[in-house]
Amino acid sequence: MPNPTAAMIVIGDEILSGRTRDSNMHHLAGQLTSVGIDLKEVRVIGDEHGTIIAAVQAMSKAYDNVFTSGGIGPTHDDITADCIAAAFGKHIDVRDDARAILAAHYARSGTDLNEARLRMARIPDDATLIDNPVSSAPGFKLENVHVMAGVPSVFEAMVASVLPTLTGGAPLISATLRIDRGEGDIAGPLGQIAKDYPALSIGSYPFQKDGKYGAHIVIRGSIQAEIDAAVKTLEAAFP
Amino acid sequence: MPNPTAAMIVIGDEILSGRTRDSNMHHLAGQLTSVGIDLKEVRVIGDEHGTIIAAVQAMSKAYDNVFTSGGIGPTHDDITADCIAAAFGKHIDVRDDARAILAAHYARSGTDLNEARLRMARIPDDATLIDNPVSSAPGFKLENVHVMAGVPSVFEAMVASVLPTLTGGAPLISATLRIDRGEGDIAGPLGQIAKDYPALSIGSYPFQKDGKYGAHIVIRGSIQAEIDAAVKTLEAAFP
Repeated sequence: MPNPTAAMIVIGDEILSGRTRDSNMHHLAGQLTSVGIDLKEVRVIGDEHGTIIAAVQAMSKAYDNVFTSGGIGPTHDDITADCIAAAFGKHIDVRDDARAILAAHYARSGTDLNEARLRMARIPDDATLIDNPVSSAPGFKLENVHVMAGVPSVFEAMVASVLPTLTGGAPLISATLRIDRGEGDIAGPLGQIAKDYPALSIGSYPFQKDGKYGAHIVIRGSIQAEIDAAVKTLEAAFP
Repeated sequence: MPNPTAAMIVIGDEILSGRTRDSNMHHLAGQLTSVGIDLKEVRVIGDEHGTIIAAVQAMSKAYDNVFTSGGIGPTHDDITADCIAAAFGKHIDVRDDARAILAAHYARSGTDLNEARLRMARIPDDATLIDNPVSSAPGFKLENVHVMAGVPSVFEAMVASVLPTLTGGAPLISATLRIDRGEGDIAGPLGQIAKDYPALSIGSYPFQKDGKYGAHIVIRGSIQAEIDAAVKTLEAAFP
């Protein structure tokens, strides 16, 4: 059986303008790989209603799991929750369960739960809350879409909350070989190995260090013996 | 007149598996912003023919400029050039102009221009070459799609080659204010300012440092006087 699939939607003008460097994609990619879920596509889009709704609808249909990051804070440009509700035709308003979490959090610090902060309790009907151990304001899951914060520490905490609830697949096994030759020398034998082992995924990642060329060859698959055999063939070709 | 638009396609299984952290998106985003081209969308996809072709066709139609990174090396998993040709119904083969560049490069280092390396001279008909001052193997432009390498040093050199050829727009002017208050306190007045200055784009980027909350407020627009007025209003609200 093939592994479950996933897609991610990174929401935020600040990423597209180059102001902020996204780190959530790399984090989620590693976490999903570790539980055997194949991340197939990531889209980075701006804070625009129509764009967000269209991306959510398309990716929710195409993949088993969808993860979003960004746009669920208290300010006027945080429109993700409303867009998710619209994408699935759900009503959205401040929900009692989310309000209770925020009320308890701000009571502890003696901070006013004002109208702006209450926006973070806007949760679509039928959505399940995602725990936020960092700053309380919850994410949520609606259909197969997990809606999470953009701030990396909060995003990572929410991923940790969500990961045990997902149906994983067979974690990929991989072996990495470093070959200190130009990719142009490696490509011939490597292409032959890729043909001989069609079940394996074989990637070549070139590097240049101290003026010398080399490549890391990563061999991925689900059967250890097959990976071992491919590694031996490759080692024999580049002794 | 609105600024020209752009989209980027990052091609590579290694990004989606979490093995490699992409840095080309952030670089391109900053460079495009500096010349007034609005990056509207980025897609990260795997090394799969159908996926690459569909993404190229969709984004080439939707945006003024498209930039791809990855998949133009000498190994069997480098399939981007062939996919671009297929996306536009163009014939592709080793082209004399690209072969001459590679031949000169490898002659200098006494390296054999073998079959694998010659793959990097596969260029679609009607494409224009993009100069690669780092490792010679050229990128190319076909229709409105700029096809560039994934290795960051080469990608960045190719972006530098391409940037002067693009039609830019009005570079966005921006002002950044740091406010040492929780976003929940800032959101109310900020939302009002966003309403009062509909031509400005106002973003709030929260941070947490040494246990204290704050946010960087970024005000972007094309008219300096308007930005100045919004900044003054904001400063007055948070003295």
